[in-house]
Amino acid sequence: MRDQVIAWLSNNVSEHRLQHILGVEQMSIQLAYQHGVDPKKAGLAGLMHDLAKFFPPSKLLQMAQDSGLKIDQLCRSDPHLLHADVSAIVARDEFGVKDEEILTAISNHTLGSPEMSPLSCIVFVADALEPNRGDTPELELMRQVSWQNLYKSVRQTCDFSLKYLLNSHKTIHPRTILTRNWALQIVKQQARTSTQPEGLVAKVDT
Amino acid sequence: MRDQVIAWLSNNVSEHRLQHILGVEQMSIQLAYQHGVDPKKAGLAGLMHDLAKFFPPSKLLQMAQDSGLKIDQLCRSDPHLLHADVSAIVARDEFGVKDEEILTAISNHTLGSPEMSPLSCIVFVADALEPNRGDTPELELMRQVSWQNLYKSVRQTCDFSLKYLLNSHKTIHPRTILTRNWALQIVKQQARTSTQPEGLVAKVDT
Repeated sequence: MRDQVIAWLSNNVSEHRLQHILGVEQMSIQLAYQHGVDPKKAGLAGLMHDLAKFFPPSKLLQMAQDSGLKIDQLCRSDPHLLHADVSAIVARDEFGVKDEEILTAISNHTLGSPEMSPLSCIVFVADALEPNRGDTPELELMRQVSWQNLYKSVRQTCDFSLKYLLNSHKTIHPRTILTRNWALQIVKQQARTSTQPEGLVAKVDT
Repeated sequence: MRDQVIAWLSNNVSEHRLQHILGVEQMSIQLAYQHGVDPKKAGLAGLMHDLAKFFPPSKLLQMAQDSGLKIDQLCRSDPHLLHADVSAIVARDEFGVKDEEILTAISNHTLGSPEMSPLSCIVFVADALEPNRGDTPELELMRQVSWQNLYKSVRQTCDFSLKYLLNSHKTIHPRTILTRNWALQIVKQQARTSTQPEGLVAKVDT
């Protein structure tokens, strides 16, 4: 299956994007081991998260519509936001992936979602933090946090993305805020109770 | 009416808050003259925007509930967010304000709202930028923009608030994002078409 997906990707995304995808796959596997999540699922979700990254806007809209997805106004005016959902559709229809948790992790990789599973959290943060994203001190610090506390890492990843969108005067999808608020509440709750779900939180600092 | 409201405020908010309220009143009047909005309405909305600022959470929740307001989960867990809506209720019930545009401007002063009126925009930015808020270079620059382009000023005010909430790890209400996206789109549209609604936009720069 892996070779098949990589062969497909070679024909459908740039070489630069393929390197990023392989980076997300590897980081997802490592984070899965660290946080007690199935590493096979994490690797597959990482490998397939950007299948539709290079699909043109009209194709993204058409496929999302054909699959009965609810398309909000922001996604309609910026269909690239749909590449996460459409990647999950390709994973299902082209590669026969049936595992809902994997498909949902692919769908969630750009905007996240409140209450998302640890597998979704892993792909969401790996997408932002895999080594090809750069080696600034801020990213290095965020990578350390991703090993320590998955929910804090989700909050940081949202904040990183939000600051970029604010500074570059780009539209922000409110789901990023809902994802961030959710992760923030979990971290605050962890700090209050100091009960740390085994495998998900190795260390909590607020 | 003005003396009556100030007398009421003296018994219901701190002296520091009263100075802020009078600052918002004055800046709202000045912005109204600049942008072709009724200055009397702007002054009243500015004067009454924080009537419920010091109401305890239980009172805010009770009054909002009694008035049939839809209370979302974020407002329920942080009832202080309701002080804008409840201030409008006090303006209506205590001071007999019937003008819906004034009441809505009071309601919108914290989170704004997509498609809000120029009067609402004025009170929203005056709340953030009146002189008592400080004199940092960033605030001074934002004040200049508020004279030039009301929508750009709304976008900047949202961004200022969002960066504060991000940096201080506080929950963000998604309505702030919707308000910001709306104002951002207007400014981008203005830059594309270079048609500037008289009285609202004195100068556009993106």
